[in-house]
Amino acid sequence: METAYQRLIARVQDVGRMRAVSELLDWDQEVLMPDKGVTARSEQTALLAGLAHEHLVSDETKKLLDEAEVSGDDLAATTNLRETKRVFKRAASVPTDLVKELARVTSMAKNAWAKAREAAHFPTFAPHLAKIIELEKDVAERIGYTTEPYDALMDEFEPGARAAEVEALFAQLRDFTADLVERTRQTPSKPDASILKRHYPKEKQATVARRFSEALGFDYAAGRIDVSVHPFCTSPGGPGDVRITTRYFEDFLPASLFGTMHETGHALYEQGLPAERACTPSGQAVSLGIHESQSRMWENMVGRGRAFWSCHFDSLKADFPEALGDVTLDQFYGAINTVSPSMIRVEADEVTYNLHIILRFEIERALFTGSLDHGDVPEAWNEKMRKSLGIVPKDDREGCLQDVHWSMGAFGYFPTYTLGNLYAAQFFAQARRDLPDLDGSLAKGETRPLLDWLRDRIHRHGQCYRAGELVERVTGKPLSVEPFKTYITEKISGVYGL
Amino acid sequence: METAYQRLIARVQDVGRMRAVSELLDWDQEVLMPDKGVTARSEQTALLAGLAHEHLVSDETKKLLDEAEVSGDDLAATTNLRETKRVFKRAASVPTDLVKELARVTSMAKNAWAKAREAAHFPTFAPHLAKIIELEKDVAERIGYTTEPYDALMDEFEPGARAAEVEALFAQLRDFTADLVERTRQTPSKPDASILKRHYPKEKQATVARRFSEALGFDYAAGRIDVSVHPFCTSPGGPGDVRITTRYFEDFLPASLFGTMHETGHALYEQGLPAERACTPSGQAVSLGIHESQSRMWENMVGRGRAFWSCHFDSLKADFPEALGDVTLDQFYGAINTVSPSMIRVEADEVTYNLHIILRFEIERALFTGSLDHGDVPEAWNEKMRKSLGIVPKDDREGCLQDVHWSMGAFGYFPTYTLGNLYAAQFFAQARRDLPDLDGSLAKGETRPLLDWLRDRIHRHGQCYRAGELVERVTGKPLSVEPFKTYITEKISGVYGL
Repeated sequence: METAYQRLIARVQDVGRMRAVSELLDWDQEVLMPDKGVTARSEQTALLAGLAHEHLVSDETKKLLDEAEVSGDDLAATTNLRETKRVFKRAASVPTDLVKELARVTSMAKNAWAKAREAAHFPTFAPHLAKIIELEKDVAERIGYTTEPYDALMDEFEPGARAAEVEALFAQLRDFTADLVERTRQTPSKPDASILKRHYPKEKQATVARRFSEALGFDYAAGRIDVSVHPFCTSPGGPGDVRITTRYFEDFLPASLFGTMHETGHALYEQGLPAERACTPSGQAVSLGIHESQSRMWENMVGRGRAFWSCHFDSLKADFPEALGDVTLDQFYGAINTVSPSMIRVEADEVTYNLHIILRFEIERALFTGSLDHGDVPEAWNEKMRKSLGIVPKDDREGCLQDVHWSMGAFGYFPTYTLGNLYAAQFFAQARRDLPDLDGSLAKGETRPLLDWLRDRIHRHGQCYRAGELVERVTGKPLSVEPFKTYITEKISGVYGL
Repeated sequence: METAYQRLIARVQDVGRMRAVSELLDWDQEVLMPDKGVTARSEQTALLAGLAHEHLVSDETKKLLDEAEVSGDDLAATTNLRETKRVFKRAASVPTDLVKELARVTSMAKNAWAKAREAAHFPTFAPHLAKIIELEKDVAERIGYTTEPYDALMDEFEPGARAAEVEALFAQLRDFTADLVERTRQTPSKPDASILKRHYPKEKQATVARRFSEALGFDYAAGRIDVSVHPFCTSPGGPGDVRITTRYFEDFLPASLFGTMHETGHALYEQGLPAERACTPSGQAVSLGIHESQSRMWENMVGRGRAFWSCHFDSLKADFPEALGDVTLDQFYGAINTVSPSMIRVEADEVTYNLHIILRFEIERALFTGSLDHGDVPEAWNEKMRKSLGIVPKDDREGCLQDVHWSMGAFGYFPTYTLGNLYAAQFFAQARRDLPDLDGSLAKGETRPLLDWLRDRIHRHGQCYRAGELVERVTGKPLSVEPFKTYITEKISGVYGL
């Protein structure tokens, strides 16, 4: 006889499998589906989302959740029960009509956003934004929260995160970052980033993307790399099938070079999750923030680090002799670590990136406390850009319409990007302490010590520890901005001779 | 208020969508999935198959089938109701335990077959075959039949087909084919097929495959071509997303050249089905035999025809100057229409191919009437090969273990291949009558008149007419072997100077 817990897990796994299949449908659509397949695909996607939802939020699941018992010694089982209760409660709190209404509204809003962005005209998108905010407020109220509605939304992406705590961290980043940017602006010794905009042939970029993803540890027997308009990482078959995408611009090397390292970071996390617990919470990633910590660590701390390039720069030069023939390692290292305030988040450097996120966090939070009206978003955006980055968008296209997130109803998602940067720095500082020769091994092209450390400390645990717990467990301290400040100050001081 | 019929159709469409998603899972697995994804994928496939089955064979479907009413004037609705009843009855007749047992047994049998084939050792596979036959007999009894159990199995692939009627057709083919083969053997003027085994670079073959599939009418905005070990055609998103695969052997051009035309033929049918009725029977293909008629017509009647090559041979020569530089159109036309008895069905020529099918049909039918014991299959196979083709396999690998079908439990499938050839010839003869300048247009590279004719007469009707009805409607006569005999005699006589 199967226990209630075993039957519950079988259900949870089925839901997980339906979601994995949905990921394949999305991957296929982004990467290779023929154009005329779009109608049938959207029907398939809707069907599977509905099936997964029905399967999760059913009387049977509720009954099994009430009956299931696990031993407190069994961490994986305890985690599975805890997280399934959390996810069930969230899903069951929102009535099906509201879920459908949100799906309908965001589906139209995504189109409206694309058109408004194209036309650089916020008012076209405004009524859709208003409607989404109204519905998301309803969602937040139904899910419930202790302090403010925004917490309920963040909880979907970063379980346990609280807006007030995030604000406390971000507050410490604001002035520090502004100060660091100002110092780079005033120093006379500036790196030359224009070398990254020389001509880099596509085919060579593809070879390089594959080689560096492998160099970081990506297992191609358990994954793929393909091309898509927006790079992403997805796992349509658990740790054994992890797929990343990238894109190639012949006049801008970083898009594929660091884009691939970023997605590889996500992929290494997914490939390192415990396969025997796939499709259950204890076999899944902790949160978007922890996920982002892995992508940012490999992209920035490793991939934009001097140790890595002291080993790999010669091979990159050999791939791009025309573009890099006259460039030294120092010049290249400077170029990839240039600080320069800019309008578009996804193109931002490692320092100013967080200011873009903080701006969005402030606006979102204000929209949900009610202190900002949706119609005033462009003005608030531009004013914040001026204050924090010293530049003002020339129109809504390079301002508040640049990101797709709001049109999808993904409020509470943005802060996870900067949380990821903070987690990454704190983890990496600990890795340096635990692996005294980390830089030495990276300089020899050996990434395995770091990957093994991440696998042992983070990946293999799935969701067994919440983000906050995990950080304390791995680093002995709660999350703070200090490791990031130390890391970035050291790097930028070196590059700019501060 | 939705009518019972409308609710029934919504259910049927959902089942169709689940099946389409399963097709995508299979396509992905065959074409590009990383190796380590196989476990998760098999769980996903099983889950979706189970969901589709449960959704179809439910009390709700039964109730709606009983309540649904359609107007006799509405051919599509009448078809949907008739075919849903048929499919429901088949599915509901077989208890879930038997379905699961068959899935379990065939899953193991597929592995055992692969090993037995590798080792050319039938006894390794024999117990699996025995078990599958036993289960399939049970399936046939539960589904029911008028004359013999084999009819119930054929009905899955070729609805309405009867073994006795198939035998009557095949009987007329046997002696005719043997006689034609004998005459090609005795004539001194034989074409030289070895030119097809010269060196044909892969990249060029890929260009050619794409160009000729487009030349036949394949719409790449509604489809793709990729590489897989075994070529196939699948529609993971209805007429708007039809995918074919091919394979490239540098020392054997026909595999990709005619393999692609064959799959393109299947694809043209799928792309021509009525999109507005997708995922319902009236929007789906009639039967495997009718499907095969489309692939064989484009592969053989068009693709191995003189008219087509009188237009395209120069371009093929330009693609393969080394291999074809010294070859004339006549020599090429002879080479691609050579008759030569051989062991392996999938490599057989257009004439001897049917003898391979008839042999399998006879063995399968005898296994199910009980006149042949599974243990005697190799002996029966070899004896039939000797009698019909004049050659004897040197082992079971090039004998009775060559095809995967039996290990999958697909009994009753093989006859659809030859039925396809017969349908194809009868349709093509009618097309020639309806389009007097058909050869002229093909010789100018114009395939649209034939495709439009097929779309109008066959594709757009989905399953609205059963195979037998369709043939009578399109050609004015029931299916017969005469058009095939006329067609092949004319072609082979020309090539061999008979």
